[in-house]
Amino acid sequence: MTTILPKWLDTHYNVTLPTDAARMRYVITLSQLNVMNRTGGPFGAAIFNADGELIGHGVNLVVPQNCSIWHAEMTAIYIAQRNLKHYSLDNCTLYTSCEPCVMCYGGIHWSGLAAVVYGATKTHAEAIGFDEGHKPSDWAAALGSIGCAVSGPLLADEANEVLQLYNQLNFVVY
Amino acid sequence: MTTILPKWLDTHYNVTLPTDAARMRYVITLSQLNVMNRTGGPFGAAIFNADGELIGHGVNLVVPQNCSIWHAEMTAIYIAQRNLKHYSLDNCTLYTSCEPCVMCYGGIHWSGLAAVVYGATKTHAEAIGFDEGHKPSDWAAALGSIGCAVSGPLLADEANEVLQLYNQLNFVVY
Repeated sequence: MTTILPKWLDTHYNVTLPTDAARMRYVITLSQLNVMNRTGGPFGAAIFNADGELIGHGVNLVVPQNCSIWHAEMTAIYIAQRNLKHYSLDNCTLYTSCEPCVMCYGGIHWSGLAAVVYGATKTHAEAIGFDEGHKPSDWAAALGSIGCAVSGPLLADEANEVLQLYNQLNFVVY
Repeated sequence: MTTILPKWLDTHYNVTLPTDAARMRYVITLSQLNVMNRTGGPFGAAIFNADGELIGHGVNLVVPQNCSIWHAEMTAIYIAQRNLKHYSLDNCTLYTSCEPCVMCYGGIHWSGLAAVVYGATKTHAEAIGFDEGHKPSDWAAALGSIGCAVSGPLLADEANEVLQLYNQLNFVVY
């Protein structure tokens, strides 16, 4: 099966998680595993349907896939739409370990997602050298106006711990 | 070879085009072929290096690929980076038959592209029911500030003819 996901993530885990916090911990764990497996940047994302079933997940794969599109959120949208065989993720919610950048914000706009929940903030990402691009300051309200409710930060300290881990490993590894 | 491109486009054409106008006509032709082949929306894009050599190209594939990410610009970035085996398109220029939406604007931000040239405008796209999303009004200046020069509209009337064709066919076909 051809896929962009690293081997440790390239399966459809049969997971149902009932709460926002449990789903956020899942994507924070993905972000941590991506760092520890050296398969990309410190970001994870996953999409759950209204029953709390996992529809698709992703991590940052820009360097290993040689493709600037594969931020965690875009990867998760791609995988979820492939699993559903449909280009619209109605009634689904995206959980992402960090506030989306301008590309992922735009990707969410077209994805049909009903909601987005993020962990760490733009400020956390910028503190270790990532940037978000020039995103409209009212991006969350703009998504709200098309029926996609944005909430966060949620478990930001836990999400930020992975950003800090990545930052420390960078200093050691590179 | 696995790819997202439709069969009529799934090859690396050995093309060198010397001028902005010739490259714009190439992507307008892709947009027209995409409509006539019924393989997606009325948008085409291509990436050329500093010598005018075609590095990658794409069309809108949202419906046939069941994926909201595959706007023409994102498809072209994906294919070009795959061809170059690198996530940054330094010294390359993206030609797109229509002004990019907010997702593609963000995708361009991370792509490493040196320049973007667009054909038809947001106004043309909106006139047939497409929308661009909530893009910052100073998007072109923001790209300029990171070293990606934006210019357009170029050959907007020719690009708009394809949008009009799509609009007319829609009324007949659907």
